Amino acid sequence: MSENTFEIEELVKLISKLPGLGPKSARRITLQLINNRENLIKPLAQALGNVYKNIIKCQVCGNLKGKNRDCSCMKSNFDKICVVENLGDMLVIENSGIYKGHYHILGGTLNSSDQKNKDALLINSLVNRVKKNSINEVILACSATVEGQTTAHYIQSSLKDTKVKISKLALGLPVGGEIEYLDDGTLFSAFKNRGPIVSD
Amino acid sequence: MSENTFEIEELVKLISKLPGLGPKSARRITLQLINNRENLIKPLAQALGNVYKNIIKCQVCGNLKGKNRDCSCMKSNFDKICVVENLGDMLVIENSGIYKGHYHILGGTLNSSDQKNKDALLINSLVNRVKKNSINEVILACSATVEGQTTAHYIQSSLKDTKVKISKLALGLPVGGEIEYLDDGTLFSAFKNRGPIVSD
Repeated sequence: MSENTFEIEELVKLISKLPGLGPKSARRITLQLINNRENLIKPLAQALGNVYKNIIKCQVCGNLKGKNRDCSCMKSNFDKICVVENLGDMLVIENSGIYKGHYHILGGTLNSSDQKNKDALLINSLVNRVKKNSINEVILACSATVEGQTTAHYIQSSLKDTKVKISKLALGLPVGGEIEYLDDGTLFSAFKNRGPIVSD
Repeated sequence: MSENTFEIEELVKLISKLPGLGPKSARRITLQLINNRENLIKPLAQALGNVYKNIIKCQVCGNLKGKNRDCSCMKSNFDKICVVENLGDMLVIENSGIYKGHYHILGGTLNSSDQKNKDALLINSLVNRVKKNSINEVILACSATVEGQTTAHYIQSSLKDTKVKISKLALGLPVGGEIEYLDDGTLFSAFKNRGPIVSD
């Protein structure tokens, strides 16, 4: 590009930092942007600015909310909370349509070596939410990793006093999973959680 | 996402319009952006704003230039012009390192049914540039498509009076191209443009 367009190089550099994009696709995207000044660059700059200015993390449930708007977690029309590690996990569950209801986004997993990290996760806030609202069930949708399961275990013990029903996602064969390629842990869980065959 | 975060949906919608990105990758990118407010959203919004405000198309050579800066085409330290259809073509040639010099970006190809389109292409400006500067050679790097070759032909006739040397890119086998899979046009050009084998 011409020597006096450093603004463009700056833009390419930033776009290539986004997940799944490299320098080549960043350059292609930048070209597309430049060729659509009014339809793309302008609205995109504004949309980013709006998100930056107006969207913050709710300090109660960890979800995103408008700066001057009440978070949906302030409503009391719910009796279940689904606990997830991060926003992306919530979106996957929400898009699957399998659970419609309130979420609690921890903001990560427990890291045993780091006490600070424990305080940053919204676990105390979860306990408060359960105490304040008439919650019937807390569904722990943590990942089936060591960190995820440790976090689930810690939450479980934190919620002990509230006597709320706590459940966690089933472990087993993933749909499409071939026995031949399964790890021992999954196989063990699948055997342990086996159920009777129900004839149609 | 929560019902009161329409700013985020707006951002996802815009990002999914970019080339190579769909709704799923747009969502992933948006999450990454939101998780990096200060390092990504803010600088990206600013970079887009800067490009929108400061970068314009040079009316002489079609390249991009800073709004208040002289375009590099105003310098007269060159004797060759490489004519390309669009910015992307220029970048590919520039990145290959095969040609270092001045470009002329037409802004598209001729469309025989559309007289307006002919006026929008910077062909008259190219003729003026050739007349005003001491240009030795105009290299037509148009695509080997019907539109590209029609455009090249039209430029050739527009430049006839200037007596400048006009050359165009060779047609032939692409590197790695297998004879078996070549179309007749390429094969014809490759035969026509065959050259003697030079021993090392």
